[in-house]
Amino acid sequence: MLVMNLLKEQIRDIVDFPKPGIVFKDITPLLKDPDSLQLVVQQLAAPYIKADITAVAGMEARGFIFGSLVANYLGVGFIPLRKPGKLPYNVASVDYTLEYGNASLEAHIDAIEQGDRILLIDDLLATGGTAKASCQLVEQLGGEVIACAFVIELALLSGREQLSAYPIHTLITY
Amino acid sequence: MLVMNLLKEQIRDIVDFPKPGIVFKDITPLLKDPDSLQLVVQQLAAPYIKADITAVAGMEARGFIFGSLVANYLGVGFIPLRKPGKLPYNVASVDYTLEYGNASLEAHIDAIEQGDRILLIDDLLATGGTAKASCQLVEQLGGEVIACAFVIELALLSGREQLSAYPIHTLITY
Repeated sequence: MLVMNLLKEQIRDIVDFPKPGIVFKDITPLLKDPDSLQLVVQQLAAPYIKADITAVAGMEARGFIFGSLVANYLGVGFIPLRKPGKLPYNVASVDYTLEYGNASLEAHIDAIEQGDRILLIDDLLATGGTAKASCQLVEQLGGEVIACAFVIELALLSGREQLSAYPIHTLITY
Repeated sequence: MLVMNLLKEQIRDIVDFPKPGIVFKDITPLLKDPDSLQLVVQQLAAPYIKADITAVAGMEARGFIFGSLVANYLGVGFIPLRKPGKLPYNVASVDYTLEYGNASLEAHIDAIEQGDRILLIDDLLATGGTAKASCQLVEQLGGEVIACAFVIELALLSGREQLSAYPIHTLITY
């Protein structure tokens, strides 16, 4: 609880973004505070220090920040999961439905090897659509999703239900 | 030279991406190799360990990876420079010209304070358009650009000429 309260001080509410009625959780104050950022990385990684994680995967774009930091902290590589058309080599792809339409995520076909133990990292667990698609993408390539870890969870949106097949770790709940 | 040669082994050429005639430098093998990734971070940060950097700024999206890692290594905060419409709070913006059209970059108006000493990080120095716009954005907000550091420089594209006002540090030159 102490960690959550400390971190909440570095999250800013932005009303009516990206559209009226939504209160957006702005993490940029947290990113700018080195102690808070380091605390987030340690706390995201802590449960997995002895989990034999072989790589961390992070979703474009804010997941790149926390994902690469956690990968570095755990001493493993980082795998970017990207929006369509961004990755230059041959890709695997998963389509999914978002609140406002359809989306897809891509990973290089050689990004993950059979038996890789993947920790998925993103900044926010909302409806869980992007995270579920990411898990499917990892599995499609032969990897095992050991857990999904998020800085922030919006509990009212029930993202955990989409991810019931996986262990979930979140630092801040609203 | 040794470092450059070691790192070049982790960069993959992708022919005809994003369009025919272009050879794209794919950094995903480097990201997946933890020793190479750590070496890149150390080498990017090395000249600035005693430069009193107050924050690292990184450009969306691959700059988020290296920028946040270098920020963490230097013990300072990270400032994301983003594509239009992504940042939720009030933003400053710089428009610039790319090879294929126009683009703009945004930063929160409170991301940088007067007197901040900023290290700019991106994966690639190509024509220098994005980097120059990033420098202008930092200065517009009252920051000083101490240097621009890149993993890869495509020397034939003469990006350094656009950035002649700033110290440039690159690890791998093609």
